[in-house]
Amino acid sequence: MLLNKERAAAIMDEHGFDAFLATTLENLFYFSGLWSENFIVTPRLAQGYALVARENLSVPTVITGIGDAAAFLESCPEMANVVLYGTFFRYESPGVELNKLERGVKDLVIQGEPKKNAIEAIIEGLKQNGLERATIGIDERGVTREFIESLAVELPQATFRPADAVLRHLRAVKTEEEVERLRAAVQLTERAIKAAMDIAREGISEAEMIRRFESTISSGGARPLFTFIYFGRRGALGQLPGGGGILQRGDVIRFDVGCVLNGYNSDIARNFALGEPDVRAVRLYNAMLAGEEAAFEAMRPGVKASEVFTAAVQAVRDAGVPDYQRHHVGHGVGLEVYDVPLLGPNDHTVLEAGMTFEVETPFYEMGLAGLQPEDTVVLRDDGPELLTTISRKLEIVDV
Amino acid sequence: MLLNKERAAAIMDEHGFDAFLATTLENLFYFSGLWSENFIVTPRLAQGYALVARENLSVPTVITGIGDAAAFLESCPEMANVVLYGTFFRYESPGVELNKLERGVKDLVIQGEPKKNAIEAIIEGLKQNGLERATIGIDERGVTREFIESLAVELPQATFRPADAVLRHLRAVKTEEEVERLRAAVQLTERAIKAAMDIAREGISEAEMIRRFESTISSGGARPLFTFIYFGRRGALGQLPGGGGILQRGDVIRFDVGCVLNGYNSDIARNFALGEPDVRAVRLYNAMLAGEEAAFEAMRPGVKASEVFTAAVQAVRDAGVPDYQRHHVGHGVGLEVYDVPLLGPNDHTVLEAGMTFEVETPFYEMGLAGLQPEDTVVLRDDGPELLTTISRKLEIVDV
Repeated sequence: MLLNKERAAAIMDEHGFDAFLATTLENLFYFSGLWSENFIVTPRLAQGYALVARENLSVPTVITGIGDAAAFLESCPEMANVVLYGTFFRYESPGVELNKLERGVKDLVIQGEPKKNAIEAIIEGLKQNGLERATIGIDERGVTREFIESLAVELPQATFRPADAVLRHLRAVKTEEEVERLRAAVQLTERAIKAAMDIAREGISEAEMIRRFESTISSGGARPLFTFIYFGRRGALGQLPGGGGILQRGDVIRFDVGCVLNGYNSDIARNFALGEPDVRAVRLYNAMLAGEEAAFEAMRPGVKASEVFTAAVQAVRDAGVPDYQRHHVGHGVGLEVYDVPLLGPNDHTVLEAGMTFEVETPFYEMGLAGLQPEDTVVLRDDGPELLTTISRKLEIVDV
Repeated sequence: MLLNKERAAAIMDEHGFDAFLATTLENLFYFSGLWSENFIVTPRLAQGYALVARENLSVPTVITGIGDAAAFLESCPEMANVVLYGTFFRYESPGVELNKLERGVKDLVIQGEPKKNAIEAIIEGLKQNGLERATIGIDERGVTREFIESLAVELPQATFRPADAVLRHLRAVKTEEEVERLRAAVQLTERAIKAAMDIAREGISEAEMIRRFESTISSGGARPLFTFIYFGRRGALGQLPGGGGILQRGDVIRFDVGCVLNGYNSDIARNFALGEPDVRAVRLYNAMLAGEEAAFEAMRPGVKASEVFTAAVQAVRDAGVPDYQRHHVGHGVGLEVYDVPLLGPNDHTVLEAGMTFEVETPFYEMGLAGLQPEDTVVLRDDGPELLTTISRKLEIVDV
């Protein structure tokens, strides 16, 4: 299970919630283990919910479409409950003995008496958990205000309160299982960076390296999420479309790339140069690295996110870029690419051991390059442990 | 440009809209050509808007974060306008002459006087288009009700009305440019199915074939979206996680797969058997194919979506599966995997030439297999043109 149950209990007590109702893919997966691809295929239509009660955090109740019955049986803890809804037609082969999974689906669909729609199924799930009069924190990002109002009409003695921010705060501190999933995503991303760099040579296009990167991610069993690979001056301009840049000698190659593996996201950046780069690029890059190092130094349990930001920006300025400005120097990472907290000037969240971060100090200089170290860390009692393993220097390749 | 301007004008007139404001990635891209990866990286945070006025449909106004300045210049029509907002730090290399794109970014950021936030920028965009008193159709899926209320407070003489359904209806009829993009996505998907089948043999896992499929998609410059490959009885159970099935002789291999290429989605299904399959599977598959053929036969401009549904289901029943039931036999496809209309019993949309569809008649029989032909078509004046090209039979491979 991914859920940090002790933390969940403490946060529910602090905020007065008797239960949480997840409505987004990330929170559904976090509470129940169910990864419903419907959220990817039809993001505007997909539904799937998971209910966890304060008094029974190990036993989620999944509320989902009847088509997900087998996925529920295969993905969720054995003790988990499910309330299905809707209509889906499956048949049974005559004269064939069903196996355990098939029998399970048949039992769920027939004996489970699927509800007409999601609202009815959620109400049923709340009743089964004795939550008719409870205060329920609902992840309001996944549903409309009208949807929450409908729930409130059906269950007038319950209280539904938005809990998106609370749920993101809950997810900020990772279990070791989550850290290992992040590590696996980072390692595959590093392998794909190396694979793309294996074909770097004068005259190659960004598109070719992007394809090499993404096919390595796919071959590793993950989904490519974003692949920003830019050569030279194009690296300073943001998300240019098309991969049209052609690699020239002296160019800085900027990677800012990420994938999703087993639900967890990577987001790291690396820089290489084809042959000797401009000395200015080297000097600036090293200043950025000094900023990132200062962030690492500042990151300790008990320190505020904003203090890490200040330390990193100041270090870059001290390292020879006195006018350096940024809106953040990193962010949480996990089931979302941008988990909380933000390592920015206005986020005063107190860091805790078990939080995971991207730490980055980018510098986009038009006419030169995009320079950007970005690394994934998990905060331990004595400071950050890096999950990234490949060189953080501006590596010069010469082919 | 992807937008069908004549159709847009007619629909705006019919529904009394003076302008549309796009708030989702698909509609932003449709109106302006800007594909903002922010919607992929940070789906809960990303913003980007495109405004098109009835009187000036060729000249969208893009409203986006200042970081997107270069992407706007590279992606959008030359005549397009932009209103930027927010803060983003870029620098200029001393003593270097900026190129055209870099100068463009500098000009936009400095002379464009970025607004403080998205609301202010949208208001500015509306004013620049003389729409202070207009009726504006807003794609309400991409924003909260509170966001729309804030716009209404700022511009009290304008009327903001939800237009999601109208915009989906607009997008249902494709331009030839859109059809060609769909065709390219389908062709790459077919190539990836073939690549995965190239490694099909007794003892291989679903996961291995999934990786082969997805790396072929990635190598082709697209993003894998969903890859359901199941062997034998596992094909009848929905979205099972993990790719754990092992291919046995006699198994039906079910593909239900899709990717995104240049913004456009594929979603096709194919079935193969490793060696001679159960005769029942062949008989059932052929009945499904008869249903799909009947759908093709029924699809003509002027016919209702629900009539296509009825024809397909009846044909399957007549072909020897008298208890066949489905909730739909296909759906529109384009910038979303599920565009409108739905080929279902309750969708009475009148089909028009230029609409594109997935047509499918799946049959999930527990204890046997999942059987599913699914093809992409564009409706022409004289009936559907298939964009899929590979065999639609239950092909038997023997390796």
